[in-house]
Amino acid sequence: MAERTLATLDSSIVDRLPTSSRTLFQAKTQKALTFESIASSLGRSEVAVAALFYGQATASADDIVKLSEILGVEKSQLEAELAQGFPDRGRAGPMPPVEPLIYRLYEIVQNYGYAYKAILNEKFGDGIMSAISFSTKVEKEVDDKGEWAVITLRGKW
Amino acid sequence: MAERTLATLDSSIVDRLPTSSRTLFQAKTQKALTFESIASSLGRSEVAVAALFYGQATASADDIVKLSEILGVEKSQLEAELAQGFPDRGRAGPMPPVEPLIYRLYEIVQNYGYAYKAILNEKFGDGIMSAISFSTKVEKEVDDKGEWAVITLRGKW
Amino acid sequence: MAERTLATLDSSIVDRLPTSSRTLFQAKTQKALTFESIASSLGRSEVAVAALFYGQATASADDIVKLSEILGVEKSQLEAELAQGFPDRGRAGPMPPVEPLIYRLYEIVQNYGYAYKAILNEKFGDGIMSAISFSTKVEKEVDDKGEWAVITLRGKW
Amino acid sequence: MAERTLATLDSSIVDRLPTSSRTLFQAKTQKALTFESIASSLGRSEVAVAALFYGQATASADDIVKLSEILGVEKSQLEAELAQGFPDRGRAGPMPPVEPLIYRLYEIVQNYGYAYKAILNEKFGDGIMSAISFSTKVEKEVDDKGEWAVITLRGKW
Amino acid sequence: MAERTLATLDSSIVDRLPTSSRTLFQAKTQKALTFESIASSLGRSEVAVAALFYGQATASADDIVKLSEILGVEKSQLEAELAQGFPDRGRAGPMPPVEPLIYRLYEIVQNYGYAYKAILNEKFGDGIMSAISFSTKVEKEVDDKGEWAVITLRGKW
Amino acid sequence: MAERTLATLDSSIVDRLPTSSRTLFQAKTQKALTFESIASSLGRSEVAVAALFYGQATASADDIVKLSEILGVEKSQLEAELAQGFPDRGRAGPMPPVEPLIYRLYEIVQNYGYAYKAILNEKFGDGIMSAISFSTKVEKEVDDKGEWAVITLRGKW
Amino acid sequence: MAERTLATLDSSIVDRLPTSSRTLFQAKTQKALTFESIASSLGRSEVAVAALFYGQATASADDIVKLSEILGVEKSQLEAELAQGFPDRGRAGPMPPVEPLIYRLYEIVQNYGYAYKAILNEKFGDGIMSAISFSTKVEKEVDDKGEWAVITLRGKW
Amino acid sequence: MAERTLATLDSSIVDRLPTSSRTLFQAKTQKALTFESIASSLGRSEVAVAALFYGQATASADDIVKLSEILGVEKSQLEAELAQGFPDRGRAGPMPPVEPLIYRLYEIVQNYGYAYKAILNEKFGDGIMSAISFSTKVEKEVDDKGEWAVITLRGKW
Amino acid sequence: MAERTLATLDSSIVDRLPTSSRTLFQAKTQKALTFESIASSLGRSEVAVAALFYGQATASADDIVKLSEILGVEKSQLEAELAQGFPDRGRAGPMPPVEPLIYRLYEIVQNYGYAYKAILNEKFGDGIMSAISFSTKVEKEVDDKGEWAVITLRGKW
Amino acid sequence: MAERTLATLDSSIVDRLPTSSRTLFQAKTQKALTFESIASSLGRSEVAVAALFYGQATASADDIVKLSEILGVEKSQLEAELAQGFPDRGRAGPMPPVEPLIYRLYEIVQNYGYAYKAILNEKFGDGIMSAISFSTKVEKEVDDKGEWAVITLRGKW
Repeated sequence: MAERTLATLDSSIVDRLPTSSRTLFQAKTQKALTFESIASSLGRSEVAVAALFYGQATASADDIVKLSEILGVEKSQLEAELAQGFPDRGRAGPMPPVEPLIYRLYEIVQNYGYAYKAILNEKFGDGIMSAISFSTKVEKEVDDKGEWAVITLRGKW
Repeated sequence: MAERTLATLDSSIVDRLPTSSRTLFQAKTQKALTFESIASSLGRSEVAVAALFYGQATASADDIVKLSEILGVEKSQLEAELAQGFPDRGRAGPMPPVEPLIYRLYEIVQNYGYAYKAILNEKFGDGIMSAISFSTKVEKEVDDKGEWAVITLRGKW
Repeated sequence: MAERTLATLDSSIVDRLPTSSRTLFQAKTQKALTFESIASSLGRSEVAVAALFYGQATASADDIVKLSEILGVEKSQLEAELAQGFPDRGRAGPMPPVEPLIYRLYEIVQNYGYAYKAILNEKFGDGIMSAISFSTKVEKEVDDKGEWAVITLRGKW
Repeated sequence: MAERTLATLDSSIVDRLPTSSRTLFQAKTQKALTFESIASSLGRSEVAVAALFYGQATASADDIVKLSEILGVEKSQLEAELAQGFPDRGRAGPMPPVEPLIYRLYEIVQNYGYAYKAILNEKFGDGIMSAISFSTKVEKEVDDKGEWAVITLRGKW
Repeated sequence: MAERTLATLDSSIVDRLPTSSRTLFQAKTQKALTFESIASSLGRSEVAVAALFYGQATASADDIVKLSEILGVEKSQLEAELAQGFPDRGRAGPMPPVEPLIYRLYEIVQNYGYAYKAILNEKFGDGIMSAISFSTKVEKEVDDKGEWAVITLRGKW
Repeated sequence: MAERTLATLDSSIVDRLPTSSRTLFQAKTQKALTFESIASSLGRSEVAVAALFYGQATASADDIVKLSEILGVEKSQLEAELAQGFPDRGRAGPMPPVEPLIYRLYEIVQNYGYAYKAILNEKFGDGIMSAISFSTKVEKEVDDKGEWAVITLRGKW
Repeated sequence: MAERTLATLDSSIVDRLPTSSRTLFQAKTQKALTFESIASSLGRSEVAVAALFYGQATASADDIVKLSEILGVEKSQLEAELAQGFPDRGRAGPMPPVEPLIYRLYEIVQNYGYAYKAILNEKFGDGIMSAISFSTKVEKEVDDKGEWAVITLRGKW
Repeated sequence: MAERTLATLDSSIVDRLPTSSRTLFQAKTQKALTFESIASSLGRSEVAVAALFYGQATASADDIVKLSEILGVEKSQLEAELAQGFPDRGRAGPMPPVEPLIYRLYEIVQNYGYAYKAILNEKFGDGIMSAISFSTKVEKEVDDKGEWAVITLRGKW
Repeated sequence: MAERTLATLDSSIVDRLPTSSRTLFQAKTQKALTFESIASSLGRSEVAVAALFYGQATASADDIVKLSEILGVEKSQLEAELAQGFPDRGRAGPMPPVEPLIYRLYEIVQNYGYAYKAILNEKFGDGIMSAISFSTKVEKEVDDKGEWAVITLRGKW
Repeated sequence: MAERTLATLDSSIVDRLPTSSRTLFQAKTQKALTFESIASSLGRSEVAVAALFYGQATASADDIVKLSEILGVEKSQLEAELAQGFPDRGRAGPMPPVEPLIYRLYEIVQNYGYAYKAILNEKFGDGIMSAISFSTKVEKEVDDKGEWAVITLRGKW
């Protein structure tokens, strides 16, 4: 269905997320904005913006000003909901994931975990890739075999 | 410890892997080969080669010929261990992972799962990124902040 | 009890489903429609329609128009509930299932999983049957031994 | 890899299966027989034969005579391993499955479980589809979109 | 305490049960009826009636008429709550059970499961005892050693 | 397969059972004895004998003398394996059971647990049915609808 | 803090307990009564009274009369909440316990379970200590090493 | 069976226990000693001795000398197995326990945990009963109602 | 974001905490107080104060007086919420933790648990470090490699 | 028992650890060396050395030379076992820990996790304390109240 292009917030996971998630998603739906357009206005990556909407990332004071404009939400409300506290991460969904799309990512870790570790250790020595000093992006590639989703994870060693 | 550059097979996970894993890792250790050098000789990506060593991927007839040469293992033994059957994937380690490096990848799925889903759905519509028609690579980047591990996942939508 | 022919929505699982599930099932009950008749009017398979009611599948714009007529629900309400967002699948019930009928399907996977894998691998080579590019139907057969349920799963390799 | 057509028994699951599984798979590998050819000689469905190899189904006295000939295993050995006792089913693999192909079947139950139940109840009334008085088959279809795996489950209501 | 003879519905499990459970138990408490007397009026076994109260069994049209009289609940309300849909079984309590009395039954399965299987297989061959085509009753026996609870399970093979 | 009438010990559960289980089952298989015939010679119920074979019940000195004769096992060996220690019960199989036949018993507890509790409480007051001062038997009934397995549990209140 | 001597009901576990728990604890708090004083007025042991407050034990008609006086709650309310139904035990908290004090008791079972079993079996033979025909008390001893909590469990063999 | 008075070590849990457990239990069985007699010779409580046999407690140098005499095991062997290292507690059995006798103790914690906590807090204030500075004993009482097992736990507050 | 310095209470965990947590955190947010400043006014360690806010520790009568002043909350309200009952600890979050920061502490226990035990045993003998007679603090160190968090745990042996 | 000062390797966890753990602990026991003395000779912290013995940390080339001397193990053997590969961390014991001493550390995370997070966030902002760029030590303090274990965790923010 080509015209369906807006991710919304499923009501059944609202309870696990901070109050701000509901506010942000409602405004996004009402304004019919994609994460791509919000990210572009905000000057942050799409995944970072989605993570912020799901309460997994913090908003800067500047983000809040811009979000207020982009989404048409009172700045004071966004400040109350987004400017204080620190993200309580990791609660959006169950693990192992039951959502098929998210499960595929989990399956990659399950199947390739040791392969990644072996390659990373041989390249970097003993250590770890940070999941915190970390950025990630999603891109779409199209070739004659069809569409490809390309996810890039970049973490400090 | 700069000189430690070889991933080996931990004896405590051998029981979960096919016989070929032990053969391949022993030869790799004896020849002191990195996955990078094997991958280069084999003409496949490093992660694919590591996955093959961990029994998560299949070897082609051509791979077996080359591996026999590279690793100095009898071709007949590799054929017996690698040319038949189909990978029984997903058993290398427990989930959630207890190994910290692998856990970080798991944590990324836990924290960013819904953000990825939202972005992917907005870019591609309803559907899924395949974890099977899928390739992946690991790269090392160095900048003034230090070393960065970059993992790329590319899956058919 | 021959006259009981309508599946309804059990109140104890409503919280795990999207808002649309309640709307759709209430209208179905009020109109006393079976999935068979809705599917027939909609031109989709019965299982697809039931999956849509349980929030596991998406409705096209055309589906929404027809559902509005069939169920007597305002099109605007169905659009608000069904035309946006993407299904957050997999939450209808616990796994392992506690419902005996659903458990039987689970038990088939438990008991025949490796047999299916062996047969599929021998027929198709290494790979996977998609659970997404996938269609499924339920049929009823009657012979002298009684009634038989026939479930067909058809997935892209 | 077109030439890989034989499912074998992964050494890491042998401990969960009866002794007969090892005997049967070893002979199958040595004779290079597919399940299709064994099933054809035996006059049973492919999945039933694979289930028998994995210890999930019983062999009749006639099956044992034929298997002895087909596989070149002493009839007395097959009798000792196959003619006594009753299958202790359900132990071949973990649940939820970690093998991606088997997981896809599990995911179908997870996502469509309630939809199947609704359709089955509306067609048959309250009750259950037997997973014991039950037959199943796997077929391969090819069309212009590619290959499709078709699994049919047929159970007594 | 000799005078305590009425099972009621514990408020902490109401959420897992259908709406009808609350209606039925409230009326039963108000009328101070035992399951024995309801079962006798209804012409069904006590366990079947209790199962119906807990939403594990269906009520026939005739049951509904009688229950309306016995319990003093409007027939229309019982029809709305009991005459539609199909039981979504298995959710009354957690497994393993935490309630000691129910745990004892679970423990019997844990300790005697294989013994039952061995005896049943030797008596009936390979197969299964249905938990659906199934009836069960509870009786009280008194001898000089005290009171004995006798539970009989009768299932189609 | 009419001729298959002997339950044997599945090799994959031997490790969870005491040494005596292997001894007893091997002799039973070699002598081709059913539990019915052993129980009859021993003067105990079939389920009790099977439970003894699975290490869930104790053998009296008299049982040991008789078992030695019936099974043709040296009395000294049976004494060493059966006359000392106390059963370490509950380890024969996993819970929830994966074996379909045993699962059906588990499912009965899951679905009818609260119904049994309600009936038992109304008949006996607050308390519990012992799973230890307890006897149980399995019977086979045949009527025009087919074969029925009847399991009776009798426990001290 | 010497002055803190009243156990109250934590609001976060109220949902798992029967309605009576809230009534009883609120009255206890308002009257500032310890379990010791209530137990003394009631003529039952302190643990039994606390168990009654947590819905793990039944109140006799006499208990209800006395509790009404002691706590200043209408007898009719206590009768409605306490005189009917049977305890649905075992739901007060999660297992393994997360509360450190309760965890210590759990740890004793974990560490000494087999030691208790060995001693009990040698003293009593095969059998079991009832957790139902059972009484228990808590005492405080003080010696020069400090205070000691002494818990006694007394169960019918 | 009056004559069965010796607890032995079940072979199926040996792997979870230290080497000393096997040595100690074998000698105990060969000498036909009860824990009561060993405890009496050793001057320690029965439960402490059983805990030592199961690797849950340490032996003093003096204990080792005495155990060597009592059990007829070379002192050097006992020293090698018992005089070094520190107990790695808590592994004897699974939690929740599957052994019915041990489960009953677990059930007491499950049902009475909060009652104990309430009583202990009211008697001692906020704090905890140590499971380490802790002693415990088992006694047998006989009255006209039968035999009673009395377990006393005494822990430092 | 330098200006974000106030920990607040995430709405999604409020249900697991006592009423006082909400009161305390709301006042803290309104007054814009850090735990450092509250701890300094209260004369207790920062972690102790945060633990008190999360319902893991008790407030003395003196603490309540001071907290009333510092936070501007009526003393009577704090007394009602804080001066009675005993902490029901351990429920703030799931284990294993999903919050990355808390998971890191969990991971330290997972990876270093046996190392700590070995060192503690060699230093102190057999025994245990109390988690109750226990104090802990968090400090910040800065050196040329960056900022370091230093957590000190001090427990009675 | 004052003389017990050596931590050894419990045989029941050997299978989860690399081969080097057995070698190192055996030599340590034979030489009767404490971790304190080894750490002192090696110039590393005690916990780091114990972690190395349990396979949770890597040994440098220099460590191997010194360990060979200190422990009297052939350098070639230590090189084979310690100089290659990368630690596969996190497998030494189960989580939640069953060992009481290790459980106490786990309990600290369970009870104080959010308190630590709140304090750390207020001191450092959003982020995480590394469990990898991390050092830790154990100290013993004695005062008039007895012995205190002091564990310090120091991680990069």
